Amino acid sequence: MKLARRAHRVRIAGFRFAGVRCGLKTRGPDVALVVAEPPAVAAGVFTTCRAPAAPVQLARRRLLGGRLSAVLVHAGNANACTGREGLRTASVATALVGRLLGVPDDEVAPCATGRIGVQVPRARLLRGVRVAAAALRPDGFPAAAQAITTTDAFPKTAVRRLRLGGRRVTVAAFGKGAGMIAPRMATLLVFVVTDASVSRGAARRSLTAAVEGTLNAISVDGDTSTNDTVLLLASGAAGNPRVAAGSGAHLRLTRAVTEVLEEIARLVVLDGEGTTRLVEILVRGARSATDARRVARAIGDSMLCKTAFHGGDPNWGRFVMAAGNAGVPIDQERVDVTIGGVAVARRGRPLPGALGKARARMRRREVRIVLDLHLGRGEGRIVAADLSLAYVRFNAEYTT
Amino acid sequence: MKLARRAHRVRIAGFRFAGVRCGLKTRGPDVALVVAEPPAVAAGVFTTCRAPAAPVQLARRRLLGGRLSAVLVHAGNANACTGREGLRTASVATALVGRLLGVPDDEVAPCATGRIGVQVPRARLLRGVRVAAAALRPDGFPAAAQAITTTDAFPKTAVRRLRLGGRRVTVAAFGKGAGMIAPRMATLLVFVVTDASVSRGAARRSLTAAVEGTLNAISVDGDTSTNDTVLLLASGAAGNPRVAAGSGAHLRLTRAVTEVLEEIARLVVLDGEGTTRLVEILVRGARSATDARRVARAIGDSMLCKTAFHGGDPNWGRFVMAAGNAGVPIDQERVDVTIGGVAVARRGRPLPGALGKARARMRRREVRIVLDLHLGRGEGRIVAADLSLAYVRFNAEYTT
Repeated sequence: MKLARRAHRVRIAGFRFAGVRCGLKTRGPDVALVVAEPPAVAAGVFTTCRAPAAPVQLARRRLLGGRLSAVLVHAGNANACTGREGLRTASVATALVGRLLGVPDDEVAPCATGRIGVQVPRARLLRGVRVAAAALRPDGFPAAAQAITTTDAFPKTAVRRLRLGGRRVTVAAFGKGAGMIAPRMATLLVFVVTDASVSRGAARRSLTAAVEGTLNAISVDGDTSTNDTVLLLASGAAGNPRVAAGSGAHLRLTRAVTEVLEEIARLVVLDGEGTTRLVEILVRGARSATDARRVARAIGDSMLCKTAFHGGDPNWGRFVMAAGNAGVPIDQERVDVTIGGVAVARRGRPLPGALGKARARMRRREVRIVLDLHLGRGEGRIVAADLSLAYVRFNAEYTT
Repeated sequence: MKLARRAHRVRIAGFRFAGVRCGLKTRGPDVALVVAEPPAVAAGVFTTCRAPAAPVQLARRRLLGGRLSAVLVHAGNANACTGREGLRTASVATALVGRLLGVPDDEVAPCATGRIGVQVPRARLLRGVRVAAAALRPDGFPAAAQAITTTDAFPKTAVRRLRLGGRRVTVAAFGKGAGMIAPRMATLLVFVVTDASVSRGAARRSLTAAVEGTLNAISVDGDTSTNDTVLLLASGAAGNPRVAAGSGAHLRLTRAVTEVLEEIARLVVLDGEGTTRLVEILVRGARSATDARRVARAIGDSMLCKTAFHGGDPNWGRFVMAAGNAGVPIDQERVDVTIGGVAVARRGRPLPGALGKARARMRRREVRIVLDLHLGRGEGRIVAADLSLAYVRFNAEYTT
């Protein structure tokens, strides 16, 4: 997989973008604005955290209508754990966007990333909104991608092109990372924009399906942010026949959305603060796909497994330990473990002499670990970062 | 709380102990034997991991009878992820104990801690069993406590004395730690021995109740070992009237068991490899005690919270984030947060100016964090270690 370290310079018909500075971060642009004219069909997926940030609470409500004219994102302050005052800030800022663009407030979705537990300096944000509205351009995609980053080493974008109903369609995404990259700003924000014409239901189903196996299948540090938001906006400007749920075109669109999100997901893990190794954990032979995913996640989230990843240690016993704690049935006497293609355990027992070779594989920058539970046909996977000294240093040394 | 760094030199009527070396660890004693004559009333609590080690599988079966004549513990190899050969090793070793002592095999419980995924050198272990059987002494408690340690900095013991039915009774415990102290040997083993006379049912209930709020309420790294075992053995040699379940004497016995386990639990967290700070998280006002405990554990297990503990950072937003991910209802607009007695957030909003004072409190070696959810009367707590550079170094640098 090619990982672009620079934002794609892409235009998507029907959209304008801006990325400007208002001073929420110590430096660099920190306000992004995405505008669809006419309003785009929209779908969203939000954090499952039961203490969602103010922007998430508001955006969730505004997505109910299934269309959006604008998305306002600010970086540097997540507007989380800020109570009613925080909700008011999100509401006032999006109202200003509506007024400046001449669209209804409830077609403007707010998103934020940054410090939590601190009120947003409202006047500064509103100033940023004005500057952003004046800076909107059809080629502003890279500027917006840059403006939503916090401690990310690079902006994260991905683009796919496909044909739908004889028309050329573009699916582009930009996002920022969570956890290791953004310790005090633990947030995943991803925006998918396309000029495809697509029905509301099809847009929602494409996004939900695509998120499941990509952004929902990574583990940086196992913490779920108060602000996680993924939005899909479809302008319809490509002029293709409207994509209906369940059609062949819908399948192809979903595949393109999945591909851009997969690329963003890997960029997020790779750019994790302190990440030195990217480990894909594939679990096969579980009773169900859900069981398989839970086992994979238990391994990917375990601190003992993550430190083994970091040390390049083919410590398969730890993986079985974590699998045993996933809360799903396993029979350790059936488990096969493979590390980077080297079988290290069969039917729960060590294979003599395999560890040396497995260690060499485990030390690569990207490793795949496969557990076959031999209990059924369920399969699931997760992409995990290791746990490094840099992660701890970064997250411990920051003080509020 | 006084934390003894040296094993208590205690005798408990009805028991003999030994701690000897057979060579499973690179140095120091590594085989412990505890013998009750006549057989002791016994109760046990085991790991919930679904890949339990061979000794756990065997010990669990042998506890069904409710009495034990001996417990055989070896350190250095956990006999986990070893399949049928591992079960055979545990079976053969306990059979040898039975033969040497003239007791039935099924009154001998095996326990182990150490590396996982590697077969136990059986001949070496059997040699150790013979040496241990010959070394049994009424004053061998400290030797046994030392022999079960792995990377522990010191043996962990606790003693309480009480009167039951006019007789002087001793409750003593020895244990070893998990996770941070025993990264590649992630195991918690604790043995409670008492000369009290107690019914099987009362013994079981005392142990279960005592474990719940103590050993089950700590978080070193959130990983549950394949080998965790807590056993209670009661010889009855004190001559008190047999303690029946639900009696006043039973309550007092349970309290004593709880106290020794609480002491062992704190020693385990404090002696965690890399632990620099011990954080008690108390959650109040939850809908139930179970909810409260889940919220406390979510905070205590979160990598972002643990790194904040390490940095002495009063980052209460992270605590609310983790609480929001505990899977239980919370209303962030009701949450109060107190750090070391300093209120930092009320009704989900930051209290201006509180962080400076809270930071000083957060930097103490022991800190208490209180979250009041204001949803009900449920209360629960957990004692957590921080996540330090030393933890990562220790666990990453070890290679199988």
